[in-house]
Amino acid sequence: MSSQASASNTMEEVERRERLIDELLPVVDSEPSDEVYRRLCELHPADQADFLEELEPEKRAEIVRLYDQEGLADLLEFFNEAARNELIDIIDPESLTDLLVLIDDELAADLVEEMPEDRVHEILSLMDMPTSAFVTDVLAMPEDSVGRWMSRDILALQNSWNVEEALAYLRRLAPDTEHPFYMYTVDAGGVLQGVIDLRRLITADATRLLSEIEVREVISVDASMDQEAAAERLRHYDLLALPVVDGNGVLLGVLTADDVLDVQVEEATEDIYLQVGLDAESEALSTVGQTLKRRVPWLLVNLTIGFFSAFLVSQFEGTLAQVALLAAFMPIIAGHGGNTGCQTTTLVVRGLALGEIYKRDVNQLVGKEMGFGMIYGLLAGILTGGLAFILTHNAWMAGIVLVAMMLNILCAGLAGSLIPLGLKALKIDPALASTVWLTTFTDWIGFILLLGMGTFFIDKL
Amino acid sequence: MSSQASASNTMEEVERRERLIDELLPVVDSEPSDEVYRRLCELHPADQADFLEELEPEKRAEIVRLYDQEGLADLLEFFNEAARNELIDIIDPESLTDLLVLIDDELAADLVEEMPEDRVHEILSLMDMPTSAFVTDVLAMPEDSVGRWMSRDILALQNSWNVEEALAYLRRLAPDTEHPFYMYTVDAGGVLQGVIDLRRLITADATRLLSEIEVREVISVDASMDQEAAAERLRHYDLLALPVVDGNGVLLGVLTADDVLDVQVEEATEDIYLQVGLDAESEALSTVGQTLKRRVPWLLVNLTIGFFSAFLVSQFEGTLAQVALLAAFMPIIAGHGGNTGCQTTTLVVRGLALGEIYKRDVNQLVGKEMGFGMIYGLLAGILTGGLAFILTHNAWMAGIVLVAMMLNILCAGLAGSLIPLGLKALKIDPALASTVWLTTFTDWIGFILLLGMGTFFIDKL
Repeated sequence: MSSQASASNTMEEVERRERLIDELLPVVDSEPSDEVYRRLCELHPADQADFLEELEPEKRAEIVRLYDQEGLADLLEFFNEAARNELIDIIDPESLTDLLVLIDDELAADLVEEMPEDRVHEILSLMDMPTSAFVTDVLAMPEDSVGRWMSRDILALQNSWNVEEALAYLRRLAPDTEHPFYMYTVDAGGVLQGVIDLRRLITADATRLLSEIEVREVISVDASMDQEAAAERLRHYDLLALPVVDGNGVLLGVLTADDVLDVQVEEATEDIYLQVGLDAESEALSTVGQTLKRRVPWLLVNLTIGFFSAFLVSQFEGTLAQVALLAAFMPIIAGHGGNTGCQTTTLVVRGLALGEIYKRDVNQLVGKEMGFGMIYGLLAGILTGGLAFILTHNAWMAGIVLVAMMLNILCAGLAGSLIPLGLKALKIDPALASTVWLTTFTDWIGFILLLGMGTFFIDKL
Repeated sequence: MSSQASASNTMEEVERRERLIDELLPVVDSEPSDEVYRRLCELHPADQADFLEELEPEKRAEIVRLYDQEGLADLLEFFNEAARNELIDIIDPESLTDLLVLIDDELAADLVEEMPEDRVHEILSLMDMPTSAFVTDVLAMPEDSVGRWMSRDILALQNSWNVEEALAYLRRLAPDTEHPFYMYTVDAGGVLQGVIDLRRLITADATRLLSEIEVREVISVDASMDQEAAAERLRHYDLLALPVVDGNGVLLGVLTADDVLDVQVEEATEDIYLQVGLDAESEALSTVGQTLKRRVPWLLVNLTIGFFSAFLVSQFEGTLAQVALLAAFMPIIAGHGGNTGCQTTTLVVRGLALGEIYKRDVNQLVGKEMGFGMIYGLLAGILTGGLAFILTHNAWMAGIVLVAMMLNILCAGLAGSLIPLGLKALKIDPALASTVWLTTFTDWIGFILLLGMGTFFIDKL
């Protein structure tokens, strides 16, 4: 199976990082912190952060205190949220202010946002005007918008300049922006006009105007756009960067594919979690208390629905008392219908999310599910009916099991495709048609079909 | 729920594309193909491809024939596999050869690979030497390796050059490479030495050697490395590009974040599909025949396992005949244990895939699951036992239901965490511990606990 191979290959890369950490961990116990720090500095900041996250908070704080400002800025970029907040807490306000200027603008705004109000005031008052104005600016953007997330570290060249002026401008700027290769052109009002690549600039005659050599068809996004919609646009058009503009087309920043990568991984995690009723913030390594808080509410709703299943089956007590073997076919009919339907839901939800299923495809999709449901339902029904005959030597029992299995699979396929499509039509996220709810539906239909027919034909069983 | 909001937001971007297509579709029926072609040319190639994919093959072929070579090259980049192969089939060998030179190297190699052998010979013989040698070269790389997937369109600067020579070299090259901003430095043997950004080059004194201004710490990958491991490396270090080298460190190409984005989306799809036993190639909009072929083998295995569940329950026929209401608690105990365990499995599998759970975290993880399982198991057991008491007015029944529910939830949590961890230790993809298999396990444990205790205490019920 290709997915087996691929996931184990990613696993190898994860194991490489795990080995790196395993080699260093004994050093923490045997050597003084400054030796650990020295060894850490030989690693990439991403790996330093990875390692430090594995330590006890006290030990981590001890080592982190040895870092200079530049090093701390790198750590902040790569730390997970817990380690990041801890780090913020142990730094005094002055150093923190300096640090916020060093790191990515959007990260700085994020950090400020999570601080208690009085600390924010203190920090903003210690910052120089442009920086504090900027942070206030970013914080004014809607929470999941591109404006919060973009990098403002862009090269905007006036398209009224000639090539020589542009090159002189580039030389004047300190060469330490993170992405020095996205050069966008703007008019006198700062409105995005085009994009220029380095070599075009170097190759062109010194006196040509940028407006003559810029590429004018630029796909951009609005700063107020949702970050995940922007990520999907970047992916669809296969771009490495998307310029971000305000409502008037003024260039504000840039969104790059490396940032989008993180969002896509988060989004995939959310989709996978949603299938089993987990919220996006859930983590495998949380405490029992956190786990209870995050998972119990959903589980209790789920349990309540289970009560209805129990109640439903209890209505057939008389039938079950007479034909106890009907109970043996409850799990297989309900469960197998559920598994078939889950496959359909999963395909439809994913197809909708990736823009592979459009409205006009609905007939084809539902028609296919009906065809598949009838053929496979009949096959599974015959096999399960056969088993019923072997166990009970009763042709009526076999027939009831056959029909219940067949119809439940058919219903499961229809529900599995129609529910997410319906949710989409209602502008609700189709992923909420999680497989857990679908299996509740197929449980009920399965029980009603099997036990209902059992009750009706009780004399024959 | 944040995931609800986010997914609907991506949906908006998908709907924007859907509207684009909906507006153009009537034009296809009412206007001649060249008018459709004219309208299409106003769109981005990605959207042209999206639209053409929606048409019937004959209509698509009619319009595609109107494209010039440049336009066809763009279509090939954005077409899905079916439309791409169709396009290849209708092009004559000479045009196809020209086309292969125009498109991305890695795409060209991909296309050649899928052609029938005699067509490959014909195509290679029509190509000029460097191109055909290149295609042969790429095809010699292992299938899922970085070497297959990277772009060879890189700027390699000799680090023995001075700045002026480097700039002269840049001016000499045609400015049409796709990613003109990754400038890597190599030694005389082509071995990767460092990376230089544009502004450093422009700002530096003309006589300085590149070896003096290059940044020497470059994270690279080997061409033979698996593409998904490379993708994970790029993501971990937050990079926009990774240079690719051979076993001797010679620079061969570059891997960029936009390519990685596509791989990550595919991988997430695979993980989501694996949970419900779908293979990676499954599609919502396939035919009934394809669906039967892809899904039936797995479903039959699943059904066979269901037979064992039915057989297991049938062993308790005597007990069920005496206490039919036990059957009412089978689905809730089995199902709720399954749902609880699925949440755990999902968290652990995802945590392992993203490198958030390491070996040394296992005790913490399993300890937490046991704590959670005991507390929530007791809660769910009391509630379900309470329901049992209401339905049966029998304290023994309530007690049996309580204990069965509690123990099944505890087992589910343990199995849900230990199975993926065990698979990882055995170097098997933990994602194969799909939730469907876990629920089979919890079904059996649940039935055995409930019906076993029911049989033992039958006199009290």
